[in-house]
Amino acid sequence: MKKILITGFDPFGGESINPAFEAVKLLPDTIAGAQVIKLEVPTVFGKGPQKTIDAIEEYKPDYVLCIGQAGGRSQLTPEFVGINYVQARIPDNEGNQPMNQPLVEGAPQAYFATIPVHAMVEKIKANGIPASVSYTAGTYVCNAMLYCVMHALYTKYPNVKGGFMHVPFATEQTVNQPAGTPGMNLKDIAKGIQAAVEAILENEEDIQIVGGETH
Amino acid sequence: MKKILITGFDPFGGESINPAFEAVKLLPDTIAGAQVIKLEVPTVFGKGPQKTIDAIEEYKPDYVLCIGQAGGRSQLTPEFVGINYVQARIPDNEGNQPMNQPLVEGAPQAYFATIPVHAMVEKIKANGIPASVSYTAGTYVCNAMLYCVMHALYTKYPNVKGGFMHVPFATEQTVNQPAGTPGMNLKDIAKGIQAAVEAILENEEDIQIVGGETH
Amino acid sequence: MKKILITGFDPFGGESINPAFEAVKLLPDTIAGAQVIKLEVPTVFGKGPQKTIDAIEEYKPDYVLCIGQAGGRSQLTPEFVGINYVQARIPDNEGNQPMNQPLVEGAPQAYFATIPVHAMVEKIKANGIPASVSYTAGTYVCNAMLYCVMHALYTKYPNVKGGFMHVPFATEQTVNQPAGTPGMNLKDIAKGIQAAVEAILENEEDIQIVGGETH
Amino acid sequence: MKKILITGFDPFGGESINPAFEAVKLLPDTIAGAQVIKLEVPTVFGKGPQKTIDAIEEYKPDYVLCIGQAGGRSQLTPEFVGINYVQARIPDNEGNQPMNQPLVEGAPQAYFATIPVHAMVEKIKANGIPASVSYTAGTYVCNAMLYCVMHALYTKYPNVKGGFMHVPFATEQTVNQPAGTPGMNLKDIAKGIQAAVEAILENEEDIQIVGGETH
Repeated sequence: MKKILITGFDPFGGESINPAFEAVKLLPDTIAGAQVIKLEVPTVFGKGPQKTIDAIEEYKPDYVLCIGQAGGRSQLTPEFVGINYVQARIPDNEGNQPMNQPLVEGAPQAYFATIPVHAMVEKIKANGIPASVSYTAGTYVCNAMLYCVMHALYTKYPNVKGGFMHVPFATEQTVNQPAGTPGMNLKDIAKGIQAAVEAILENEEDIQIVGGETH
Repeated sequence: MKKILITGFDPFGGESINPAFEAVKLLPDTIAGAQVIKLEVPTVFGKGPQKTIDAIEEYKPDYVLCIGQAGGRSQLTPEFVGINYVQARIPDNEGNQPMNQPLVEGAPQAYFATIPVHAMVEKIKANGIPASVSYTAGTYVCNAMLYCVMHALYTKYPNVKGGFMHVPFATEQTVNQPAGTPGMNLKDIAKGIQAAVEAILENEEDIQIVGGETH
Repeated sequence: MKKILITGFDPFGGESINPAFEAVKLLPDTIAGAQVIKLEVPTVFGKGPQKTIDAIEEYKPDYVLCIGQAGGRSQLTPEFVGINYVQARIPDNEGNQPMNQPLVEGAPQAYFATIPVHAMVEKIKANGIPASVSYTAGTYVCNAMLYCVMHALYTKYPNVKGGFMHVPFATEQTVNQPAGTPGMNLKDIAKGIQAAVEAILENEEDIQIVGGETH
Repeated sequence: MKKILITGFDPFGGESINPAFEAVKLLPDTIAGAQVIKLEVPTVFGKGPQKTIDAIEEYKPDYVLCIGQAGGRSQLTPEFVGINYVQARIPDNEGNQPMNQPLVEGAPQAYFATIPVHAMVEKIKANGIPASVSYTAGTYVCNAMLYCVMHALYTKYPNVKGGFMHVPFATEQTVNQPAGTPGMNLKDIAKGIQAAVEAILENEEDIQIVGGETH
């Protein structure tokens, strides 16, 4: 039985919920015959990625999909690339605010996700949920999670495929946001994540790995 | 028993559904002790408003709330004012495309809604759904509905309170819209409409009617 | 020689300039053979409109065009309608913050501008500046200016045509605004206002006045 | 005397101008004592980057700054990273539309710009022009230019610093764009590019190069 580890961050930036883990909690325990392992991770540089990597070591999943909130986006957005850089506009949940530095000294400048981001988008849309590929995960904890997890996969767990997907604000979070801020029902976010997982299980990676010297 | 007539338009502009009537269909048959009368109306100048006015004559409701789609808005938006003007950017569902003309010759330039738009917004938000008052219903069939219904109420049914509320695209409609286009789950739209109806039943109108000479 | 009075507000809301009067100052003293009378007005309920109406009495212009800032809009937007309502989200420059009340007791709910808004838009665009007709001037001092000036024109100066046009932030104002906030060079704003004035001088009003009983 | 090569693309995607090279043409021939070499490049995969690399070989500049249009952005945005990937949403100016493939087989997944992007942003803003660092140059010809030029610099010209900056639509291009589309006066774009060049000449690179194995 295939296993997929799905992480979601805890609330940050003054929000009382994080749609990432709230939606992950709504997922079934198996999707398309694969076991779903759900993990809440702290919105903290270092600790968030480390908890995920520890879970990879413990559960030996075939796939890792990290979920995070991108307030202001209207779609589910699988991330194409994580970069070896951090620039924190606000402190994380333990008060760290690293600025203008690499995440992993001496490591490659970026890693591409190895889950099939385009197939994920198609499958999510086919389920009535808006989606598109994103080419920036920002420079905060979400990008740090993506980069650090991919660094672990590329260097230590080459048979595990991984990536990150951003999700919109939950509808109820937008009540106090400026007019125009998109939201999405948590059940729809969960439905989209489930479709993404189905696509991951059905498809090989999106693009042949390039840049032999980066991993 | 109080009665409220709630109308919703049929699909237009190439969309296969209209979240307005789809959400109205999800409403219960009574809200806060009032009877809900649901009516689908055509997205057609003249016929849409007339069908609503005929239903006012037939059912003698205490309140009329018309619902329409405002694709691109992220919130439920009760409309403050309808204007005596039409400028149709696309043809209606029967091919009419009136340009740059009044809706009712010789009638006032605008009518304010007589339902409590600010109280509606507060109640909708208290139910976890984003909302704000809008001060333009545009110049298409939605504004025509608001203006023509208010003209009927101000001139023939002074004891009936009325108004209009725009709702976002349903989430599934946004799959083929540009990134950034907000959507909302139909159940959340219906939840917001229900909250709006509760506010209407609880509150008197928002602002004392001004401009005695306009009606 | 025709005369046109053009007003612009002073800075408000924490801004150090107001592109409205900054651009008005850049206008030539005559446009298409008409004399341009430039007037800075305070962003204050009551006083702003009154200063304009006093100038109408003093200068006897043929046209009045009021200019105001609409931060966040990308285009020059002639306003179609002013409403008899005020809801101030922030205090004006003298600390007044009227909420949920009419501007003029007993007066019509709205007045349409009598300058040719559609022709203005076409002329502005022909000069390379983006423009569109707006159907809401908001509920702050700009709408108050439009409504109160039109009330004066409709009731006391029936031969004077008038209206209001919103302009974007000046480019330099957007340096500290969120990414995505549009700006426009003050010279381009002035160029657009000049084109608008040319359209006013060339065209009759946009729509035959409707609603005999409102004026 | 220091030399900086500044490239700008020709028009594409149905536009009759490209603000990139239009603004570059407005630059002075020397900035802060450095010689400015201006080069128009075709919006064509392969040829655009190659023409730039040929000019590096010919002119031996100290710095390379490529400029491209990002229609819809409101700010000047120095790009942080180029990725080894192409996904063309529309054909280029010679009809090529490569999809889902690397730009350079076997090369690293991404390269960071080596010009000081944060200092550039600060200097541009100090000149009254809005700016921010961007972390995605997209997947079209602009990203291809950035990636391929950085590949040449990292592998063949290690003493030449380089990068890419996106600029908004020129104001006149927005006349036929949807409401809300930001524009900027070409002179302001040129002013911002000049400030960026001053920052490049004054500052060392932004972040110490990481990932020894990528270059």
